[in-house]
Amino acid sequence: MKLATIQLEGEARAAVQLASGYLPLAAGSVSELLADGAWEQQVEAAMASHQESEILPASSVALFNPLPTPAKVICCGLNYSEHILEMGRELPQHPTLFAKFADTLTGPTETITSRHSQNVDWEAELAVVVGERLSGATIEEAAGAIAGYTVANDVSMRDWQRRTLQWFQGKAYDASTPIGPVVATADEIDPEAGVEVICRINGEEVQRGNTKTLVFSAAALLAYASQFTTLIPGDIILTGTPGGVGMGMEPPRFLNDGDVLETEIPGIGTLSNKISIRVAADAAAQ
Amino acid sequence: MKLATIQLEGEARAAVQLASGYLPLAAGSVSELLADGAWEQQVEAAMASHQESEILPASSVALFNPLPTPAKVICCGLNYSEHILEMGRELPQHPTLFAKFADTLTGPTETITSRHSQNVDWEAELAVVVGERLSGATIEEAAGAIAGYTVANDVSMRDWQRRTLQWFQGKAYDASTPIGPVVATADEIDPEAGVEVICRINGEEVQRGNTKTLVFSAAALLAYASQFTTLIPGDIILTGTPGGVGMGMEPPRFLNDGDVLETEIPGIGTLSNKISIRVAADAAAQ
Repeated sequence: MKLATIQLEGEARAAVQLASGYLPLAAGSVSELLADGAWEQQVEAAMASHQESEILPASSVALFNPLPTPAKVICCGLNYSEHILEMGRELPQHPTLFAKFADTLTGPTETITSRHSQNVDWEAELAVVVGERLSGATIEEAAGAIAGYTVANDVSMRDWQRRTLQWFQGKAYDASTPIGPVVATADEIDPEAGVEVICRINGEEVQRGNTKTLVFSAAALLAYASQFTTLIPGDIILTGTPGGVGMGMEPPRFLNDGDVLETEIPGIGTLSNKISIRVAADAAAQ
Repeated sequence: MKLATIQLEGEARAAVQLASGYLPLAAGSVSELLADGAWEQQVEAAMASHQESEILPASSVALFNPLPTPAKVICCGLNYSEHILEMGRELPQHPTLFAKFADTLTGPTETITSRHSQNVDWEAELAVVVGERLSGATIEEAAGAIAGYTVANDVSMRDWQRRTLQWFQGKAYDASTPIGPVVATADEIDPEAGVEVICRINGEEVQRGNTKTLVFSAAALLAYASQFTTLIPGDIILTGTPGGVGMGMEPPRFLNDGDVLETEIPGIGTLSNKISIRVAADAAAQ
């Protein structure tokens, strides 16, 4: 099934996507839904007992960030072999992990505004959503605890990212990481068999990778992170980006004001985010 | 004033420290207290109207992590000139920032358990606590928005930290960063005039720095971070550690099972955390 956070009468609500539209659920978001241990039964009960009149046609529904309140957003850098080579690095023994905060995320159709960087780059990614508490988990345990998958773009301010050894300040701009448009549950997507991760700028394809080439699988990343930090339902791990980012081009290429950034994973959906560059004249001096 | 989160009848409660002990407040923690925009008035009102019988003697009070639910914990590495030189690096133009999650924090007297690392190192730090919403703030605005200061130790698993370019996985172990014992409000502490930051292992002093030698002041760090990420009341920035960490010694020195790690800032208080090393035989292979 596909889960979304939709706008309903001015408020956010979790919903499940059906052939004829979206069926609202009781929870205020997919984050809130997953926090309920019995979320699968809850969704199935709603699907079994709903009336046709409760379904909102897809064309009338605005989709929000499905996961607005994760306790943890952990990102993996350097996880597709071809992207690692394009960045001039060697294949890693351990995943390179860094953290984002919940309010760094934004919705599938929101404008992304840069107020300080003119080096705004793209990183299309598969994101894995935690469905059960995980601490010290094996890869098998982690695989069984995946609630689902969503699309993400780890939009990065490369000048800020490269100011210091730690990438955080280039990857933690408010509302800069779009995710969504839905969470496809784990039974619908098999990243180890391979799903494509695609990025387009104004319709021009710039990235196309396949998750079967991930160095560390979604389940391996969850298991690894759970060795040191407890994961809970609704937590998100971004699994890394394939080759084709702007910084790896000769010369480097960045997003321009007004560009439309599309991020697609067939079987989940497409994010479409307009880019707004609002850099003050003195920003470079800060 | 000094604010704490204490144990009261089995539950956590915010409290203000008075000469005769702790006066409980309505909020469940200092995090919750600061989220109330009128927290100073609330504390002053409680202090003005309390009865002597409400005060709990300090000797009978257990102190918890004062700030259990920050939305953001941001850490600055490499911020004392002598520590930067001991790590073999140059003085920075920009602060080196990385993130922790709320559950990485622990209380002022909790045992810190390492289940995977035998390279557990210490980093005594002054932590600054945000009192007002900050976005795109100047240093002056940031200075006026500081709620107070607390003591922290950014305990670091050096082997995990050094596995990759990003430090996160060595600095995000569950319950590994003690903070407290209280939050001293901004009127009590002046880090720019200078407060000492001291670390002891089993009574032996290993670090003693002074915040007047910080490259980036507490207010400068808040202002800088607020350029890209909105800070809200209860958020915490760790300001970096002075020289004297174990990794910088020849040969490197790490904490042993049973060691008592003390972290002191005169004017705020002292953390005292026992170290427990519980490394399974196969941990090194993970």
